[in-house]
Amino acid sequence: MPLAERALIAEIRRLAKTSSRLRNSSVPTGIGDDCAVLRTDANSEVLVTTDFTLEGVHFRREWHPAESVGHRCLARGLSDIAAMGGTPVAVFLSLALPRDLPQSWVRGFLRGLTKLGTRYEVTLAGGDIAQSPDGILADIIVVGTVPRGQGVLRSGARPGDRIFVTGELGGSAAAVRQMEKAKVNPRDYLRHFYPEPRIEVGRVLREKKLATAMIDTSDGLSTDLSHICEESGVGAEIDAAAVPRARVGRSLRLVDLDPALHGGEDYELLFTAQAGKMIPNKIDGVAVTEIGRITPGKTIRIRSEQGKFKILQPLGWEHFRKVHNL
Amino acid sequence: MPLAERALIAEIRRLAKTSSRLRNSSVPTGIGDDCAVLRTDANSEVLVTTDFTLEGVHFRREWHPAESVGHRCLARGLSDIAAMGGTPVAVFLSLALPRDLPQSWVRGFLRGLTKLGTRYEVTLAGGDIAQSPDGILADIIVVGTVPRGQGVLRSGARPGDRIFVTGELGGSAAAVRQMEKAKVNPRDYLRHFYPEPRIEVGRVLREKKLATAMIDTSDGLSTDLSHICEESGVGAEIDAAAVPRARVGRSLRLVDLDPALHGGEDYELLFTAQAGKMIPNKIDGVAVTEIGRITPGKTIRIRSEQGKFKILQPLGWEHFRKVHNL
Repeated sequence: MPLAERALIAEIRRLAKTSSRLRNSSVPTGIGDDCAVLRTDANSEVLVTTDFTLEGVHFRREWHPAESVGHRCLARGLSDIAAMGGTPVAVFLSLALPRDLPQSWVRGFLRGLTKLGTRYEVTLAGGDIAQSPDGILADIIVVGTVPRGQGVLRSGARPGDRIFVTGELGGSAAAVRQMEKAKVNPRDYLRHFYPEPRIEVGRVLREKKLATAMIDTSDGLSTDLSHICEESGVGAEIDAAAVPRARVGRSLRLVDLDPALHGGEDYELLFTAQAGKMIPNKIDGVAVTEIGRITPGKTIRIRSEQGKFKILQPLGWEHFRKVHNL
Repeated sequence: MPLAERALIAEIRRLAKTSSRLRNSSVPTGIGDDCAVLRTDANSEVLVTTDFTLEGVHFRREWHPAESVGHRCLARGLSDIAAMGGTPVAVFLSLALPRDLPQSWVRGFLRGLTKLGTRYEVTLAGGDIAQSPDGILADIIVVGTVPRGQGVLRSGARPGDRIFVTGELGGSAAAVRQMEKAKVNPRDYLRHFYPEPRIEVGRVLREKKLATAMIDTSDGLSTDLSHICEESGVGAEIDAAAVPRARVGRSLRLVDLDPALHGGEDYELLFTAQAGKMIPNKIDGVAVTEIGRITPGKTIRIRSEQGKFKILQPLGWEHFRKVHNL
């Protein structure tokens, strides 16, 4: 094994040891055996999600600081756990790295990833390191738990349910559009560079049985809503005026409707609730906005600010995204 | 989403539906939601293992039929579950594929993977599909279960324990050496092209509490034994004459000692047992051979057929292997 890789593995193991102190009762065996062993209580189900992070697809080395890449890599997985109303437990990281990648980049990546992981008490419990022929490739696997039978699925939306979204939309896509023109300061586009997964909001929605269906907005509102509608066998109507558009840049400029509808990687929660349920307009400090309702049939329509309806195509801003979840 | 990828995802989902009929009670929610949901019984722990399969590292398109690549990709993960004495439950597949890869290759890969998965009643429960800039890359995640506290770890070997290995060693490395010289017929090197993970043997060893420590021989005997010794804080002595060398090729030629000691990817089980335990010489039809004993100290030595001892370096045949497990 080349020295650089040996050093890297030693560093990851050290990081994993530090992080595993937090929840070692759930992960009796982590790195260093054939499998990680996870202990869940008798009334829990296990959640598993996998997500690729690819150079040139999810990030560019000249645009994204290494810490941001590590943070976003884990945030993608945590956000999927949030969308089930679950609690993350352990993370597995498979990394393919080009031979000439500076160690400092890898260290920054790991720092971003473990900082976020520590905040959610997630143990780094295993993974693989390999040499990549071209470009950085990470596959992140997050394992979580949810009380038996209580995971919030995409399939539970019913006609008459109201549609809500957390936070603001379009901020991540706006950062990409801006970076195509000029250098940006990550602090002005935090939702793109350091998205906060909505773990606590998801848990509250699940515990209080407020959400009938839920998904995270990783592909963009139009596409993610189409996933809920497809799995639930329903249609939807969205009010354009109600969609919470992100404010970005130093001037806190409001993004256009287009990135708010189709821009992905905001990692907000999109959920439905029965008409009679009281939904707070803030959960865990995060705004919750009603944006439409579930309808019978299969059509997804949007009502413009002028009151005209048209079909909302699931355009899911593929410009910067070429990965498809199974 | 390009048409070809749409077709591929539809095909994988169809395959997953077929395979999930087998064990749907353990995987109430598979492909089609933010996470897969796995249900385990109250007395089980969850096992998780991840393994990269990289073109040019683990396989070459000109050497390996696509079916063999899919088979080996899953076998790597199943073998890790076997090495804990566990039962596999669900598999997640992340695939990065070059744009110009023929659909027939992908179909062959999936056929190899699902054939093996169906035999072990493993559900394809999720994953990712992405475009790769260069070369095929797969990351396989296998989730399994084991009765609480009973997973066979690498750390349980004690001085005086005897060391055993299943099947034969060096067959996989011999195939690689032969392919560097000439085309081979996969049927003459089955352990390389279609290795059978030792799930049943691992389960028997765990159930009957025969093994004190266990690992699969994915990196080669010398390296895998060093992992057991390191995690257990012990040394070992191996008898060169006792190491079961594979017979390969049409002529069933015996491989040299070198690939049997250092060649990886045989996916046999290497385990230790207390001196007083009766170990059958066959389990589930697979030969079990005693090859040495665990010693105090930290040295790993090999006794040559002439009775001379020397240090056994963990050389783990890195020629064809550049992936490191965390």
